[in-house]
Amino acid sequence: MGMFPKDIDERAMIKRALSVIRPCPFSVGPGDDSAIVEMGGSPVVVATDSVTIERHKPEGMTFEQFGWMSAAVNFSDIASMGGRPVALTLSLGIPDSLGDQEVCDIMSGADQCAEFCGAYIVGGDTKPGSGFVCGTAIGAMEGRNPMTRRGAVPGDMVAVTGPLGSPAAGYHAIMNGLSFPDAVDSLCIPVPRVREGIALASTGAVTSCIDLSDGLATAALTICECSRVGMDIILEFLPKGADVEDVSEETGVPEIDMMIGFGGEYELLFTFNKEGLNSLYSSGVSFSIIGTVTSGREARLVTDDGARRLDYGRY
Amino acid sequence: MGMFPKDIDERAMIKRALSVIRPCPFSVGPGDDSAIVEMGGSPVVVATDSVTIERHKPEGMTFEQFGWMSAAVNFSDIASMGGRPVALTLSLGIPDSLGDQEVCDIMSGADQCAEFCGAYIVGGDTKPGSGFVCGTAIGAMEGRNPMTRRGAVPGDMVAVTGPLGSPAAGYHAIMNGLSFPDAVDSLCIPVPRVREGIALASTGAVTSCIDLSDGLATAALTICECSRVGMDIILEFLPKGADVEDVSEETGVPEIDMMIGFGGEYELLFTFNKEGLNSLYSSGVSFSIIGTVTSGREARLVTDDGARRLDYGRY
Repeated sequence: MGMFPKDIDERAMIKRALSVIRPCPFSVGPGDDSAIVEMGGSPVVVATDSVTIERHKPEGMTFEQFGWMSAAVNFSDIASMGGRPVALTLSLGIPDSLGDQEVCDIMSGADQCAEFCGAYIVGGDTKPGSGFVCGTAIGAMEGRNPMTRRGAVPGDMVAVTGPLGSPAAGYHAIMNGLSFPDAVDSLCIPVPRVREGIALASTGAVTSCIDLSDGLATAALTICECSRVGMDIILEFLPKGADVEDVSEETGVPEIDMMIGFGGEYELLFTFNKEGLNSLYSSGVSFSIIGTVTSGREARLVTDDGARRLDYGRY
Repeated sequence: MGMFPKDIDERAMIKRALSVIRPCPFSVGPGDDSAIVEMGGSPVVVATDSVTIERHKPEGMTFEQFGWMSAAVNFSDIASMGGRPVALTLSLGIPDSLGDQEVCDIMSGADQCAEFCGAYIVGGDTKPGSGFVCGTAIGAMEGRNPMTRRGAVPGDMVAVTGPLGSPAAGYHAIMNGLSFPDAVDSLCIPVPRVREGIALASTGAVTSCIDLSDGLATAALTICECSRVGMDIILEFLPKGADVEDVSEETGVPEIDMMIGFGGEYELLFTFNKEGLNSLYSSGVSFSIIGTVTSGREARLVTDDGARRLDYGRY
């Protein structure tokens, strides 16, 4: 995850880095939010992601919140596969400028997020470094089939689990010295959609799923690329998060930029077979349908003025 | 792991950081090389550790070797519990100064180490950062009881799986522009003792085990602290690694410093019940007995001139 989506170079670097390793015969991934590893007949979900103070801790975010976030990014990846988080490891690289209190705050924040997600911190390490927290989360599938990025088919519906843009609004509020506490909270204390991921996977109706940690546009493009499909997202269907309108008015940042082009958003984007709509309604998960899967190969944003192609990167 | 053992401050920081989190009811660790997590009845071993270019990549180490090492430190932690490595995730923080080729070299080196240990890289991430590789290894216990740091009892024997000091000799050779390729290889391509760890755990005779990634003195002190015992290590029993004598002569660095006070060593230190000696001989593992567990609370180095207390930190 990043405050902004990965740029093309970074994406290409990951692909090249993955091209030199042996493919794993018993795992989904690399390439998904998490890997599924078969361990003695029982599949284990594993996700790893790091955050850095420089890149992921805007002014106004406490070290406790930074710790929460370092855990949340990993639990979110478990959630998007439909896994139940069990354990988390953390490896901290701490600069000289941080004291014991800050390190304890980071650990405490991560532990609170683990508690919220039903998991425990089981190990880790702290050593001198530039200010990074690298987390790895482990989860259980409990008989559910993992939701991947690869199963979307033309005709499926596209949905998100909640309103969009508040983390971006929080970021711009901080940058401009504006007071929008709800938006700032959504940025600083992101909620991994664990309950929702488990419930969605349990329906059997979901054909693909990804979290929005790199923003909606990147998430949609990733599902299109992995599933070899297209996607039409209807602008007016997008649920707007708290403070997005007000922050946009006060800062001049377009609402749409906040809603589709900003990382640090932790709702789930998923596709599902229309036949399964009733099972989704019965699942107890709140969601908004925002578009359809097409047989094209583009992800498009459909507005009253026509459709435009979504791109990786900033908007 | 570090090229040198962790200092007191660092150790204290880890303890304080762990003091603020909830203890995990279903896991061995934090505090051991790895955590054992019960996943649907089948225990999973998890280890996480990071390496940084600044701290762990001496001049003369290639990026491929650095990648190997980033994997090896984690597989070694799985090995010291008696686990069989299954999967590895890597999270890379890459500075602008590194190109695609270096990133691919790191990944390729890590993958070669994974292959050597019978595991696969199943996921990871690459993003801008200060030059760190954070790995998390996952392993299976396959019915073996995990070897921890806590089970040593007075009267046990103390042993190591191989000769000591070559990585340190390699380090000092590089620093002094001397050519000792065997020692340099032992530093740059550390061999996780996976086969040995599995065989040792299978004997049922081992009462505690730890890898030497922070050096023999620190490893011995850690077992003493966790098991609430003392240890007498007999200097003349210590097996001396390749090039230790020659590098010591040419650089003036005492042999004993290289053999007990330098990190980056990946043999296993273990204690065992004397009754189990025959099962250890039948296990096929090479090892050298180097001392005994005592009822004191100190780890001591016993020489012809008497005994002196081992300390954490450099020698």
